[in-house]
Amino acid sequence: MGIVIRDALVILPQKEADAAGRHTIYIDKDVIAGIDEMPEGFAEDTVIDGRDRLVIPGLVNAHTHTYMSLMRNCADDLSFMDWLFNTIDPIEGRLEPEDAYWSSLLGQMEMIRSGTTTFSDMQMHIHQTTKAARESGMRAVISRGLVGDAYNREDSRLSEALEEMEDGNDCSRLTFLLGPHAPYTCSQDYLRMVADVAKEKGLGVHIHLSESVAECENMRRDHGCTPIEYARDAGLFEVPAIAAHCVQVDENDIRILADHHVSVVTNPASNMKLGNGFAPVSEMLDAGINVCLGTDGAASNNNQNMFREMGLLALIHKGTHKSPQCVSAGEVFRAATISGARALGINSGVIEKGKKADLAILRTDVPSMMPVNNPLAALSYSADGSEVDTVIIDGQIVMQNRELKTIDEERVYYEIRRRCERLGLGNL
Amino acid sequence: MGIVIRDALVILPQKEADAAGRHTIYIDKDVIAGIDEMPEGFAEDTVIDGRDRLVIPGLVNAHTHTYMSLMRNCADDLSFMDWLFNTIDPIEGRLEPEDAYWSSLLGQMEMIRSGTTTFSDMQMHIHQTTKAARESGMRAVISRGLVGDAYNREDSRLSEALEEMEDGNDCSRLTFLLGPHAPYTCSQDYLRMVADVAKEKGLGVHIHLSESVAECENMRRDHGCTPIEYARDAGLFEVPAIAAHCVQVDENDIRILADHHVSVVTNPASNMKLGNGFAPVSEMLDAGINVCLGTDGAASNNNQNMFREMGLLALIHKGTHKSPQCVSAGEVFRAATISGARALGINSGVIEKGKKADLAILRTDVPSMMPVNNPLAALSYSADGSEVDTVIIDGQIVMQNRELKTIDEERVYYEIRRRCERLGLGNL
Repeated sequence: MGIVIRDALVILPQKEADAAGRHTIYIDKDVIAGIDEMPEGFAEDTVIDGRDRLVIPGLVNAHTHTYMSLMRNCADDLSFMDWLFNTIDPIEGRLEPEDAYWSSLLGQMEMIRSGTTTFSDMQMHIHQTTKAARESGMRAVISRGLVGDAYNREDSRLSEALEEMEDGNDCSRLTFLLGPHAPYTCSQDYLRMVADVAKEKGLGVHIHLSESVAECENMRRDHGCTPIEYARDAGLFEVPAIAAHCVQVDENDIRILADHHVSVVTNPASNMKLGNGFAPVSEMLDAGINVCLGTDGAASNNNQNMFREMGLLALIHKGTHKSPQCVSAGEVFRAATISGARALGINSGVIEKGKKADLAILRTDVPSMMPVNNPLAALSYSADGSEVDTVIIDGQIVMQNRELKTIDEERVYYEIRRRCERLGLGNL
Repeated sequence: MGIVIRDALVILPQKEADAAGRHTIYIDKDVIAGIDEMPEGFAEDTVIDGRDRLVIPGLVNAHTHTYMSLMRNCADDLSFMDWLFNTIDPIEGRLEPEDAYWSSLLGQMEMIRSGTTTFSDMQMHIHQTTKAARESGMRAVISRGLVGDAYNREDSRLSEALEEMEDGNDCSRLTFLLGPHAPYTCSQDYLRMVADVAKEKGLGVHIHLSESVAECENMRRDHGCTPIEYARDAGLFEVPAIAAHCVQVDENDIRILADHHVSVVTNPASNMKLGNGFAPVSEMLDAGINVCLGTDGAASNNNQNMFREMGLLALIHKGTHKSPQCVSAGEVFRAATISGARALGINSGVIEKGKKADLAILRTDVPSMMPVNNPLAALSYSADGSEVDTVIIDGQIVMQNRELKTIDEERVYYEIRRRCERLGLGNL
């Protein structure tokens, strides 16, 4: 199958900085087969007119929990303890696996509609996100959340995680990480066990680190170190590691993360919403850390729209540093694309010959993009995600002219409504 | 003309807190004539099905500069001085009145599409925003920016401002304020003159105050006071006053603003983007100040979408205060509706019998609103503005099913492109 996107504005990587220009993109099967140069023997099946269109690499949502999408707007303006123990936990306890499937599909609809093509998901119910991503056509990097207190290779959640990896073997869009939840829910021995299994199996790890002040204070009190040091000492950074949040990190933590090539996922909306504050993103970028961007789950954001997240990332650090030059639109763009792809080990996140064909096509003939002065700035400062018109993942058109091709939206809404009734949610 | 919105989810004011429930709204000519109770002699011309719809008061953008819409994304990640003197000022100098007209229309399209029904505009070219608002159907509160250094009633900008008020006399949707630009562009004598004219003519004033650190430092150095004290001492707070920004205000400033019933417009995106920081919104609310919300102009935001602004207002103060309860979704909703209406003196901003029929109708059968757990939270945390389906202003449907009824979008894009070419903008 050959797709041509003809004469569109395209953001391409440049030596100095990514920049937009007019180009034609040739897609052959699942890869970008040529830019401005038609590959030999190329058969053109679908032509997309690039007039009034901007093509960007599909966005990479590097940290979320899609099974929480049905908890959107159900627990807001609450203290963290009230949020977690009195609202979220009781709902989680009543969730059935199929609820998680439909909830993940809802989140994936929202992501596709706002230009995300890959997401990294830490989940509770195995096979559900996998099943939903298989159907939606999204690229997904999945970790089953792991919690435990001893070095135990027979741990049931670990067995589930490994079982699910077997399940995803046949779909090239699905890959897996080991997902120890956090230092406050995993003992150091348990983390050591996870690190050992990851090493043996050639897997990466995905963990929440240094999210709240309380987490760090408790760690200091109980173990005399920071969550970053605790994870390092368990051997977790000896495999490719992705650390979500990293809000409460000091200079020493930042050096450790940089030295061990740990990728950090910043989640600005969630960190502010739960009162955790602002991660030192500018300082982490200066230290050479691969900083990616994520929405976190809908229970603490409450959306899965990477455009909102890009806007926040571009603005808040200018506010905290009182500097209009802190975290530029170009840095935000890279955090939302190539840096996420790098962290997750996928051959995507940039528009280049030979890369996977994961693309989002935006309309520029809408007020938020008009006039087209600087497309990189537009992505962070003026676009809201509704400009995304067409989305291609792994060479498949999953949305065209805002119509989803792989998901039956009405069916998803029907199932969400039905299940929310049982769960005592969404009763308005 | 009678419009019925039947059986929709509607956010109504309640004693404790605004809340959503199912209601039917009757609109007769330009007012809300009944809620759940059909007014006597009501003639039903248009029926809007409220299934899967949420009705909210039209949003009030209490501080913007719509003539700047064509400068969207043209000056980003720059130091304030570079932004103002090397980029924005030179473009402003080349703007012709008709450019301002089309630019304002572009901004008004964007606002209608994202549920704003009223905006307060500080402008440079008289008759242009007025003309555009007359056509778009929006409610507008207009101030011609005033700059001067002496007590001079013959000031040419003041004459223009008064001339424009005559122009708007015949349209009930247009009202006017006197708009002295800022204490760093107006001497205290000039401000005193403006205050005197406002008193004589029964007008309110609209001014930028305490936006940047430099403004406050220079004021302290040159006049030994804060910009708030400077404005108060000029008599500006003896008339109904609206102060935009108020980022760098201390406890004493806050007490002055509260004591004089000055309404404050906070502009979170612009304040972060230009490196000015975060206004003490929570402290101003605690002091009883009427805090409203605005986007500021597209050159420093870079959009006119109040949903983005609501999201920022709800999140950033939770971040700065490390408190998930700081500035609630309910407080944000009021800032974006009734507080703006109060500041601008318009009989709108709340859904109540007898109020002007200024309404935005949102779809709830879209991922960002699904499931419908808490509509107030949805407005701040998950909606992006693209959910707005139908907009009614002064009883007139100006957008239905996302189709603008009053503005020829293609024509606006054509004119914007053509004019940008002359101005050296939007050349991609």
